[in-house]
This record gives sequence, C-alpha cells and structure tokens, in this order.
Amino acid sequence: MSTALINGAPRENISVHDRGFQYGDGLFETMAIVNGAPLMWGRHMQRLLHGAARLGIHAPSESLLRDEAEQLGRGVERAVLKIILTRGVSGRGYAPDKQAQPTRTVSLSPWPDYPAERRTHGVAAQFCRTMISRNPATAGVKHLNRIEQVLARAELEQDCREGLMCNEFGQVIAGTMTNLFIVSRDRLLTPDLSHSGVEGVMRGLVLERAVKLSLDARVMDINKSDVLQADEVFLTNSLIGLWPVRRIETKEFPLGRITQRVQEAIVDAYAAD
Amino acid sequence: MSTALINGAPRENISVHDRGFQYGDGLFETMAIVNGAPLMWGRHMQRLLHGAARLGIHAPSESLLRDEAEQLGRGVERAVLKIILTRGVSGRGYAPDKQAQPTRTVSLSPWPDYPAERRTHGVAAQFCRTMISRNPATAGVKHLNRIEQVLARAELEQDCREGLMCNEFGQVIAGTMTNLFIVSRDRLLTPDLSHSGVEGVMRGLVLERAVKLSLDARVMDINKSDVLQADEVFLTNSLIGLWPVRRIETKEFPLGRITQRVQEAIVDAYAAD
Repeated sequence: MSTALINGAPRENISVHDRGFQYGDGLFETMAIVNGAPLMWGRHMQRLLHGAARLGIHAPSESLLRDEAEQLGRGVERAVLKIILTRGVSGRGYAPDKQAQPTRTVSLSPWPDYPAERRTHGVAAQFCRTMISRNPATAGVKHLNRIEQVLARAELEQDCREGLMCNEFGQVIAGTMTNLFIVSRDRLLTPDLSHSGVEGVMRGLVLERAVKLSLDARVMDINKSDVLQADEVFLTNSLIGLWPVRRIETKEFPLGRITQRVQEAIVDAYAAD
Repeated sequence: MSTALINGAPRENISVHDRGFQYGDGLFETMAIVNGAPLMWGRHMQRLLHGAARLGIHAPSESLLRDEAEQLGRGVERAVLKIILTRGVSGRGYAPDKQAQPTRTVSLSPWPDYPAERRTHGVAAQFCRTMISRNPATAGVKHLNRIEQVLARAELEQDCREGLMCNEFGQVIAGTMTNLFIVSRDRLLTPDLSHSGVEGVMRGLVLERAVKLSLDARVMDINKSDVLQADEVFLTNSLIGLWPVRRIETKEFPLGRITQRVQEAIVDAYAAD
C-alpha cells in the first residue's frame, strides 16, 4: 500500500521544479484519521480553501481530496493525514509560468503516540527566543513557510513539550505547532492572529464550544506577563486535542477547571485513546 | 544531458518528505554560468555556508558543489545555476529526525534573456502592497520561505520590471528579486537588512567597489519618501547585474552619473552581452 498520492497517483516523489520546494509556495493541512475517516474534515477543508484563495492558488475539489484521503485511510485505525497544495511545477522566478497547475499531495504518517498523560496531567512549555514575524498577507494561513517554527522548535529544552513564540512587540502568538489559550479571571483568552500565526482548526472549535459552555471567550493581544499571571494555560491542535500547561519555565499552573471543561467539550473531535 | 543533480545523481525528483518541500526548511543560491564557469562563486559559497550555519543545516564541501556546478555547466555558454540545500528527508513534525541528512540539488535553467536596454536605459518599478516581514533570525539569509516575494511579484503592473517591498514601519527593504540602492546628495545608500531581506551577492560587491570609487556608501534605514526624492535609483542582483530605475509610479529619475560609474565598476561580475 502506498502512503502518498501525488495528483492522485501513488508516488513518493515530486519535481525539483515544484514551487513548493523552490519557494515554499503552497499550504498544508494535517489531520487525524481514526478508523479510516478524517476528523474535522469540513473545518480542515474550509481553512485549506480559504488559504488557497488568500495565496491565489487554485484548489482541487473537496470531493476529490476526500476520495484520496479515504483511499489512503482505508483500513487504518489511527494515523496522520497531511495534504499539501502548491502552485505547481514552473520555471525559475517568483512569477509562475502561466500554464503551471497546482500540485496536491496527500500522505499518511504514523500516529505520533503522544503519552496520554500529556492530555490528562499536562505538559511543561517554555518561551522561545526565535520570534514569529508579522505579515497580514500570510497571517492565519497554514502556508509552507515554516522556518521560524523549525528554529523555535530546535530551542526546546528536553523536558518541554512546546515552545511559545512571541512577535517583536512581545505579544505571545502561539506554540510552534499549537494554539495558545489562557484563563484569566474566568475569561478564556486566545491571541489575535491577524498579523501572525495559524488559525488552528481546533482553536476554532474551542472558541465555538466555549460559547456553548457559556464561557466568556475573547480573541485579543496577550503578552508574556498575561500568560505567566494566568490562572490556567492550555494548548490545542488537531492531533493532540488539548494539552494543559502545568509549567512555563519556573512558573507552575494548576490543572484548571475551565481547561477540563473545554477538554470534555471537544472530546468528540480528536483521537483520544 | 541532465539539468539537475540531486545529491550528485542526475535526477529531477525529490522525496515528498524532504523538509524543503514540507516546510521550506532550507536555502538557495542562484548564479550566472558563463562559458561553463559560475560567476562570483566564492561570494555565493560564502553566503550559502553562512546561511546554512544560521539555520543549523550541515553544508556540503565547497569543492563538491563546485564539481557538480562544473559538471552541469560543461559546454554551456550562458545559463542560470541554482543550488538548493535543505535539512533533508525526515518524518513529520518541526523537529527533524536525528538521522536526517541534508539534500543538495544543483540545477541549470535557461538564461532569462532580459533585454539589454533594461541595463542600458533602465526600468520602471513600483511599490508593492505586500509587506516584507521582520525577523532577525532569518534576515539576510536566502532561505526557501519566499511566499511574500511571490505575492509581491504577482502585484506587478505590466510595464513594471520590479516591485519594491516595505516593512510594516514603511521602511523600504528591497525589490522582490533585487537589492535597492539610491543616490542622495552624492551618497550611495542601501537599506539595512538586519531585520528583513536577502544580503545580495551583487549588493556586497557594489558596496566594496563603491569604496574603490571613493563613493560615500552607507547602509541605513530608507523610507518611501527617501526613495522618491532620490537623485538616482538602481537595482542589483547576480543575474541582472544592475538595472537603473527610471520611474517609480509617476516619479521619474535620470540615468544617473553615479549609477553608471557603479555599473562600469561591476561589469566583470555579471553576464553582460
């Protein structure tokens, strides 16, 4: 069984002239497959199509991607599905050839098997020195330009499961692979992503479910001291669901009540054991 | 004859799992080949090795790259040589596999054949709406995260040969594929790149040769009005050499005396007709 489809064909290679390779000129989605089916498919597709429109890349139909995801997922109990969409193969230069056609890759990776106690007992995190840059033209989009996240991830100390990234004004934007939430005076707060960061699918779900839980949830600017003075801190993404943060550097946090309520409210949407 | 070598082998494909494709996790060099030999090889290698060290990617030896460049360039009158170095093939996630080995690709593309009058008579340029972001961790490096340049390039009006990109503070940083110089009161000025942009090989040469010409050359912050009020404006890169800018939007510029002196001083370093 192949673990990748490239424009529908079972292959593991792409052209060296693909703009995804040449310029990171594309975007991606990563999602959980459970018992052959992708979780939160609709939300992932919505973000992919929205991001493709932002970058001016013609997206394939949702049904085509769904067929390919199901083809790879058939018989699979639990795995990670990644879709990459690029502006395609082209000659050299930032202006693409007029005849360039988008490249879509759909691939399957082993489930990362994060220990369950990260979800139940929480994790330690740290602030990274590597900044996250600001650009409204690309903010929110899960594009392929991820060197900042790679450099930040490389800073992680051994006992830390995630690094928090700040912009140059000291506003905390996100973890390298997660979105950040804090609870402060019973309000649920998450950073504004209009200038940096990725609008996580799980972040969107948490914000929606928070309303159903009658929580006062707000998107706003958050700085380091807001995080360090928070009552509760947690991280989200499509694969991990929600990890409570129990320590950031020397500051400890409780396993909070609101964190646990949110975790229970999204349990249908991630691949819990 | 193959036009690409991937880790030394004549191939045109890379693994879909290469981190260059997955995250833009790598860097590149683009240079002119004239009569089989790369121009400004030493300067390109210096930047590549410095950039690789900045990103923590192990670089191959210069002699290995030189052999591969000459192998592709053999018998070629004029062409573009591009070297891409990535962190290599790895499993999913921002932390690379410990055993990941860098991927190097060396490829040849046709010479772009820019009309000679761009160099002799100059070009029109415009300011782009797409901002260039700021991050000291990646500034100066010719890395593979180029979506901003792609989006800015797509803005170009038909008669414009280059788009100038500003950061969020309105400082002008560079063209999408060129470095910017202005002449103001007999001083030669070029933007500071410690927070954004690529330290062009030709920019470095121009700054060096300016000293030999006894020009007062300075690296500093430059804003839009500095550019529009300049006496002369020009653009540089390794392939074009130097293009005088004759018009930015409605503002016209002369074909300046200092611009022409600089152009003559670098004529050995680019592939002029």
